[in-house]
Amino acid sequence: MLIKELGGEFALIDRIAKNPRDKNVIISIGDDCAVVDLMNGKLMLQTVDMLVENDHFSRRYFSPYDIGWKAMISNVSDIASCGGTVKYALISIALTSDISVEFMDEFYRGVYDAAEKYQFDIIGGDTTHGDLMSISITLTGETTKENLRLRSDAKAGDLIAVSAPLGGSTAGLKLFLKNIEGHENVKKYHIHPECGMDLLPQILPLSHAMTDVSDGLASESRNIAKRSSLSAHIDKSAIRLSEGIAETAALLGDDPYDYALFGGEDFALVYTVSPEKASEIKGYIVGELKEGEGVYIDGKKITRFGYDHFA
Amino acid sequence: MLIKELGGEFALIDRIAKNPRDKNVIISIGDDCAVVDLMNGKLMLQTVDMLVENDHFSRRYFSPYDIGWKAMISNVSDIASCGGTVKYALISIALTSDISVEFMDEFYRGVYDAAEKYQFDIIGGDTTHGDLMSISITLTGETTKENLRLRSDAKAGDLIAVSAPLGGSTAGLKLFLKNIEGHENVKKYHIHPECGMDLLPQILPLSHAMTDVSDGLASESRNIAKRSSLSAHIDKSAIRLSEGIAETAALLGDDPYDYALFGGEDFALVYTVSPEKASEIKGYIVGELKEGEGVYIDGKKITRFGYDHFA
Repeated sequence: MLIKELGGEFALIDRIAKNPRDKNVIISIGDDCAVVDLMNGKLMLQTVDMLVENDHFSRRYFSPYDIGWKAMISNVSDIASCGGTVKYALISIALTSDISVEFMDEFYRGVYDAAEKYQFDIIGGDTTHGDLMSISITLTGETTKENLRLRSDAKAGDLIAVSAPLGGSTAGLKLFLKNIEGHENVKKYHIHPECGMDLLPQILPLSHAMTDVSDGLASESRNIAKRSSLSAHIDKSAIRLSEGIAETAALLGDDPYDYALFGGEDFALVYTVSPEKASEIKGYIVGELKEGEGVYIDGKKITRFGYDHFA
Repeated sequence: MLIKELGGEFALIDRIAKNPRDKNVIISIGDDCAVVDLMNGKLMLQTVDMLVENDHFSRRYFSPYDIGWKAMISNVSDIASCGGTVKYALISIALTSDISVEFMDEFYRGVYDAAEKYQFDIIGGDTTHGDLMSISITLTGETTKENLRLRSDAKAGDLIAVSAPLGGSTAGLKLFLKNIEGHENVKKYHIHPECGMDLLPQILPLSHAMTDVSDGLASESRNIAKRSSLSAHIDKSAIRLSEGIAETAALLGDDPYDYALFGGEDFALVYTVSPEKASEIKGYIVGELKEGEGVYIDGKKITRFGYDHFA
């Protein structure tokens, strides 16, 4: 049976997951990070992302600096979405024989710029050869029980808030894939994303559940709804689109809200708040959580979610 | 400049390493694991390995079970060589579209068998698509200051001990690469290795410096000698060869000691002990450490070491 016949990567993950033997493991598989109680007042967060050339980035339009930057930011975003700060990174990388030392210098300049911005250390890694460039970044972060934010922490009646405009990364990717010149302001969303870590101090006091936009707002809303045993109801017109992407979508004949809902890699934080705190939020409200299950956009239940690598 | 012109993967690692800002980081780059003082009496160990299809394993002769097993054991060996036990694993994997659910079930059976044997938990990972199968395993372990063993801890006059016979993995690999039928006892060293973790309780009270045989005894002796600012002197005839590989070497016209010295992936522990403890060791003595620098085999200084992926 092929993985796509099983139901894609999420079905595979459910199939292979086992309950941990260590009672200090609070979360293993199923959230943005694994969470372990260190029994010293701190929780350890761990996250890992594998990026493979052509699937996740292309040397045709990514500079080596941007590959390094984005590889780090996508993981920093996972730590942020669990309410933590980053402490340590491991960088595991397979390089093709044609990659130059100058390429690696630039790659690591991107890596270290992200580490400098978020004040963490690169403490190890593995550098080897492969016939395709692959990068796996492991981040270890920390938080406290008070600050830990999980997908499963939403309450019925919570509003769904998003920390930043959406859709930019997918719009930028589409411009690259269609070889359209110019539009650098939009392309930048794809090759040099930012994440929501900077907003964490303001979001933490308000938020219940939290995740980040890796796979599009529809998929992330489902993650929160499913893990919290609720249904998510999104008001499409409330979504704020990344600046400039309405023009990109018009040029390409797309609906720009599809980029926001079904694209991904915008790395905004998606979090839930009780209605009485709606006026204090950072970002904007896109919907609410109710009893029931599933994801509804403008009242219509959807069955299509974000990108699945095996669908 | 190509990476091989710079001097290969080790030269690249030296070039990119920076001193960590966090004073609790005891070791970042340069040993088998990164080491962080958790300030609760425990040290956290972290190690990561990237395995890429065709470079590090082949589906032609590795069962999916064995890919999973070996990916874990090679990392468990790194934790053992720092004097620690394994706590948590993250599994980051890129799969080609043709990989079946049954393949992944078998891969994870190998992964979980290793986790069961060494009593640790798989707490997270990333599963994605790639045009080449890539696996990156991150292990987090723990030890104490008393039990931490580093490459840099050797003393002049120490003897070099090895925990198990060597050369089996390279002999097995050569049989596969040359499509030679049979010799399953030797091939097993390559596809289903064991590591030295089980011997750790006996080795810890005796050992000063320690590492594991990832890249051959010559390279690992250099790692200890260099980090301890000493020279390593190996007596070739003292090396114990894995059972059956003398026949393999005779068949292939090789010197079996080359497999042990310049091959790798035997995952034995290499450690140093003071001469007065020589009678108590697990394994056997292959040489000693003296003042000076470099690696000498039977009195002759060598310039060729283990396999470099970019050499």
